[in-house]
Amino acid sequence: MRYSKSFTKTTKEKPKEVELVSHEYLLRSGFITPLGAGFYTYLPLGFRVLKKIRNIIEEELANIGVEEMSMPVVQPARIWKESGRWLEVGPELWKFQNRSEEDFALAMTHEEAVTDAAKQIIFSYKDLPKIVNQIQIKVRDEARPRGGLLRLREFLMQDGYSFDKDEAGLDKSYNLFMEAYKKIFARVGIKTAIIESDTGAMGGSGAHEFMMIAKSGEDKIISDGKRTVNAEKVGIAREEDIDSAPARAKIKEFFGHNNVEFMRGIEVGNIFKLGTKYSTSMKLQYVDEKNKLHPVVMGSYGIGLDRLIASIVEASHDDKGIIWPASVAPYRVHLIHLGDNYKVIDAATKIYDELWAAGIETFYDDRDEASAGDKLNDADLIGLPYRLVVSEKTIAKNSAEIKARDKKTASNIKLDEVVKTLRE
Amino acid sequence: MRYSKSFTKTTKEKPKEVELVSHEYLLRSGFITPLGAGFYTYLPLGFRVLKKIRNIIEEELANIGVEEMSMPVVQPARIWKESGRWLEVGPELWKFQNRSEEDFALAMTHEEAVTDAAKQIIFSYKDLPKIVNQIQIKVRDEARPRGGLLRLREFLMQDGYSFDKDEAGLDKSYNLFMEAYKKIFARVGIKTAIIESDTGAMGGSGAHEFMMIAKSGEDKIISDGKRTVNAEKVGIAREEDIDSAPARAKIKEFFGHNNVEFMRGIEVGNIFKLGTKYSTSMKLQYVDEKNKLHPVVMGSYGIGLDRLIASIVEASHDDKGIIWPASVAPYRVHLIHLGDNYKVIDAATKIYDELWAAGIETFYDDRDEASAGDKLNDADLIGLPYRLVVSEKTIAKNSAEIKARDKKTASNIKLDEVVKTLRE
Repeated sequence: MRYSKSFTKTTKEKPKEVELVSHEYLLRSGFITPLGAGFYTYLPLGFRVLKKIRNIIEEELANIGVEEMSMPVVQPARIWKESGRWLEVGPELWKFQNRSEEDFALAMTHEEAVTDAAKQIIFSYKDLPKIVNQIQIKVRDEARPRGGLLRLREFLMQDGYSFDKDEAGLDKSYNLFMEAYKKIFARVGIKTAIIESDTGAMGGSGAHEFMMIAKSGEDKIISDGKRTVNAEKVGIAREEDIDSAPARAKIKEFFGHNNVEFMRGIEVGNIFKLGTKYSTSMKLQYVDEKNKLHPVVMGSYGIGLDRLIASIVEASHDDKGIIWPASVAPYRVHLIHLGDNYKVIDAATKIYDELWAAGIETFYDDRDEASAGDKLNDADLIGLPYRLVVSEKTIAKNSAEIKARDKKTASNIKLDEVVKTLRE
Repeated sequence: MRYSKSFTKTTKEKPKEVELVSHEYLLRSGFITPLGAGFYTYLPLGFRVLKKIRNIIEEELANIGVEEMSMPVVQPARIWKESGRWLEVGPELWKFQNRSEEDFALAMTHEEAVTDAAKQIIFSYKDLPKIVNQIQIKVRDEARPRGGLLRLREFLMQDGYSFDKDEAGLDKSYNLFMEAYKKIFARVGIKTAIIESDTGAMGGSGAHEFMMIAKSGEDKIISDGKRTVNAEKVGIAREEDIDSAPARAKIKEFFGHNNVEFMRGIEVGNIFKLGTKYSTSMKLQYVDEKNKLHPVVMGSYGIGLDRLIASIVEASHDDKGIIWPASVAPYRVHLIHLGDNYKVIDAATKIYDELWAAGIETFYDDRDEASAGDKLNDADLIGLPYRLVVSEKTIAKNSAEIKARDKKTASNIKLDEVVKTLRE
């Protein structure tokens, strides 16, 4: 894609009221643009990142045999009343009416919807186990959206669900998702800790959170190497000083010793053993070999895609801009021509065509009006894995300048070796 | 995928209050399941169709240089007030408030949102033209949802937008989308007529509708071979008998003669020359070479994916079930084993593995409990392009029975020729 044709524009100024570096860089590089508090439009560069993450998730879930489906975002109150969550959940559940004064809610999760669908499919032990997934919009009436893509009112979630006969079956499904999640987070290039967590409003018999270790994270994590938990799990409140004497006492009681490490984290995924909470209230039952009825044993598994993008940027940037891991970068190469010499432009255009012909995704800053400094700064800000510069100086030597975004130094490369080198 | 593992279930009974054949078959074959009036869950078989259609659309739009983006479904009232549509549109625009009593609307289209985003990107004639697209949920507070996927409250739309300097530029962008749409409809296997239409609530200087010719359609279409129009365009009301004397008179006045053909159609796509309606009200402007301000000239281009699925089934079925065009079929092959002879099951399992290894998407009805009749009926109902039956009779001859869904007769095929034949 050529910059001149692309629906994008970078900005130099740091936007107002922006605290997180991911928020600043994603806005300034033209990946996202706000529509309202907690609502963002993904511009083409940002959408390409979203799509790459989506593809990685879909591939890893397909590998464990998960089928894809899709459930509505606008939902009749009926299912939320059946599960009991119409009144149980706080004001995050966004309720409203239609023109006929019927009650609706915006899906903040899809446990109710998937349980309702499963009642058309699961009747007998022969119909179990099942595992399904969707990647779908969620909405919460969030009082204080913050941090750009970190806490939104409308966001995109991968949410998987498992249906089993018993706890042993659930454990198997749960482990399938846990292993798939490890692969997903590794592929998108972030390091996560898996911590035991409370089940909270979702209900159920057990849960884990995937936490990305980051100073900007809101969650306090404590680990002794063997066991890694949320500070809440140890009995330490969110505000409490983790190094205080009372906190140290709680840590000693929980771990049996004080030899622990403190970290901060951003929750990027979570897995829940729902058990029979939803299948009991919504009557999703199966008959066993002896014709006896049982509630289906369920699990749910979620990754927030927007928050994952913010987390990747929090984990991978410098003072000039984003440093995208190759697996999720919107393009592999950022091609620039410097100056308006037609020979330079011809050489750059030829490389651009060759790179695409070889399947190497390339973003070409072909703007005439932008200065060399602006073009180079934009390349650092946008943060594609490789920058390729064509100028009068380089083509005099029949070469281009190549620089990896995560390295300090550039080098020269012969024009006829560019494709081979960048193909990797 | 194996039937026994799949999140699906067929039903024999015709569901109550179902009029359209597409509605009946999509429900009975386990492609979709209702969540409420006008709201459907796509089960995995249906979601595979949706995804194939999505891929075809994305491919054809990429071919004309369109970039992909994504805009929120829940939208602040601000943008609808700016465009003037907050009050202009009827009760289909679903309005509600959040916990802070701020006004919101659910996106029934995204002209406002895309115009708002473009104000961050388009400033100068150098920034034009641009073409973008999203595939995103739309919501309407529809008084009478009907016909299964034909008229929904929540549905998935491809909506593209173009931004140009002037009408001549708009004509170019408009034609790009028109040509892409012709290819999309051809690839998904339906025959469309392109008719001139009114611009209606969207505003603008011109519009066309892509109509699938179908008896079950709600739209009356009149064509004399040269010009094809909606009956409304000729001045004939929706209820009016098209063969009546007054109608004939209107037809003669419009076409200059009475030599016309009547058809009924389902609208599957539409393209609008929006002109400057949104760029004027929302102040999306650019400066020309002489530093003079102009409103950007816009176009919008939409295909309803759910309705397209219903249309394909309306166009392609028989009295036993759906006949999917190969391009959008959820799988290519429906494999069945008859009886519980372990040699038969072994042979079927071997073919199943070979087909997938060769990249041929295969749905395997591996159920032990289902009768031969049930399995064969389900294959016709689900409607995959090829049915492959393995039984004691066929493996005695080292063969399987193969039948194309759209042909009357089956034939035998040697087991070692199955992959080669189905690869095509």
